[in-house]
Amino acid sequence: MRIGAIEGGGTKFVCGIGNEQGVIEDRISFPTEEPEKVMAAIIDYFRNKDVEAIGIGTFGPIDIDPASKTYGYVTTTPKPGWSGFPFLATLKESFDVPMGWDTDVNAAAYGEAVWGAAAGLDSCVYFTIGTGIGVGVYSEGRLVHGLAHPEGGHILPRRHPDDRYEGACPYHGDCLEGLAAGPSLEKRWGVKGSELAPDHPAWEMEAYYIGQAVTSTILLLSPKRIILGGGVMHQKQLLPLIRQEVQRNLNGYVQVNDIVNDINNYIVSPGLGDNAALCGSLALGVEAWRKSSVNVDNG
Amino acid sequence: MRIGAIEGGGTKFVCGIGNEQGVIEDRISFPTEEPEKVMAAIIDYFRNKDVEAIGIGTFGPIDIDPASKTYGYVTTTPKPGWSGFPFLATLKESFDVPMGWDTDVNAAAYGEAVWGAAAGLDSCVYFTIGTGIGVGVYSEGRLVHGLAHPEGGHILPRRHPDDRYEGACPYHGDCLEGLAAGPSLEKRWGVKGSELAPDHPAWEMEAYYIGQAVTSTILLLSPKRIILGGGVMHQKQLLPLIRQEVQRNLNGYVQVNDIVNDINNYIVSPGLGDNAALCGSLALGVEAWRKSSVNVDNG
Repeated sequence: MRIGAIEGGGTKFVCGIGNEQGVIEDRISFPTEEPEKVMAAIIDYFRNKDVEAIGIGTFGPIDIDPASKTYGYVTTTPKPGWSGFPFLATLKESFDVPMGWDTDVNAAAYGEAVWGAAAGLDSCVYFTIGTGIGVGVYSEGRLVHGLAHPEGGHILPRRHPDDRYEGACPYHGDCLEGLAAGPSLEKRWGVKGSELAPDHPAWEMEAYYIGQAVTSTILLLSPKRIILGGGVMHQKQLLPLIRQEVQRNLNGYVQVNDIVNDINNYIVSPGLGDNAALCGSLALGVEAWRKSSVNVDNG
Repeated sequence: MRIGAIEGGGTKFVCGIGNEQGVIEDRISFPTEEPEKVMAAIIDYFRNKDVEAIGIGTFGPIDIDPASKTYGYVTTTPKPGWSGFPFLATLKESFDVPMGWDTDVNAAAYGEAVWGAAAGLDSCVYFTIGTGIGVGVYSEGRLVHGLAHPEGGHILPRRHPDDRYEGACPYHGDCLEGLAAGPSLEKRWGVKGSELAPDHPAWEMEAYYIGQAVTSTILLLSPKRIILGGGVMHQKQLLPLIRQEVQRNLNGYVQVNDIVNDINNYIVSPGLGDNAALCGSLALGVEAWRKSSVNVDNG
């Protein structure tokens, strides 16, 4: 089976072709410019590729409520030209195949649950910590949409006592994204995160913030695995510090073996590496194909 | 149809008989003493009542994983005699009927989704703010269990700048429950919450803490409705203050009509009043009965 996958990120789009085993056989990427250019590149890539379905995981906010009139639209975003853009409908004009549609982070959570670090589990939460912070939620075997979709990058952590940086979020100042995304690291310390030594105090502070978000996630959602991805998490020293923070915050309250005795296998890196969102989009495509097959079979 | 309902709370148990329309036709309550006494009273109440199923929503932590060896047990609790008590198995010895089993707050969330303030919606989050703080989560049409079950009463809010109270939680000190449950109000201000004037600064501080928890819930879970119950919420001045705090925290970031323009119908009191957990337990019983009927029908 040939399934198309589209990962729409804040700085670039990645398109790929894969199969139902999660293998990406071909890929291409291009910058996230205005939607006309991006859509032309996407359509050009998939033309004559004979994909049987396409899965899309993209930056938001987007409308993922199938009952909504604007299902498949990008909603309100500062990205030029993208606000109110009918993404799915535009794609459907060129490709009459089943399509899956969700946020990039929900796609990543789903990809990890199907083929990655949460394979076989019916819940996981995926954080991406990079240019921004996003959270995808897979719970009781379903991606969480609810009213819109989770926007967990903007929860409000307690300030680290040594942190004098005001925070970079235009909406909230010192929310999680405002304090702990890549650009905030750079603004606070004056150099890119990747240039800070592994034992720089920046990482303990970073773990303090991400650890709080993970703690809130455990307490509110009780997921079976938590996966931390994104560029900032390439810093290998960070994951053990975050696990420590979570243990310190919970202080033995949640008496579950996975957390108390096995946290190294509970809070983990993506099993799919930096391909989580693209593979997840592929998984959304496979799911859309299966659903449409069932509908056809049932008449 | 006659369905039994059991609500197990920290201070009292309530048992009732109801029907599939959510009407409670009879009820009794007794104090939460050691499990032998409580179970004897429960069994005595339901004997000869001919219930076709029983739903139980109880204080936790409890094991609600059907695949677990200790499914139906109370797990680790400081309540004398209750740690490791096989609640469901004990009840099954006396009543061979289908049983539903979940936390009291998940039951309340479910009750509200079936017959209450979230009727017809496929997601809601229920907070009880009383002697303790508990959170029940219903998402994408399913109660959230995950690794154990949500314990959202213990998330870590930012401290109010005027608050000098250290917090009452034995595990976390100043977590949400430690700062905002009924006993913390009393310890901070020296009198019971019910004796504080409606314009006392205590309520603005209380709203500050609960508002943060609701904000985190919106951002991480995106529920279609948020329901605030429990004894502390009997203070009528509190709900509008909490809505204000949530708007202030979100600051227009989540551009969804329900929140931006209609928050009075989004963050609400329980439609079932103080019966949310008992009605929810009834709903769990009805669901257990339905599932078992389907199984019988399918052979």
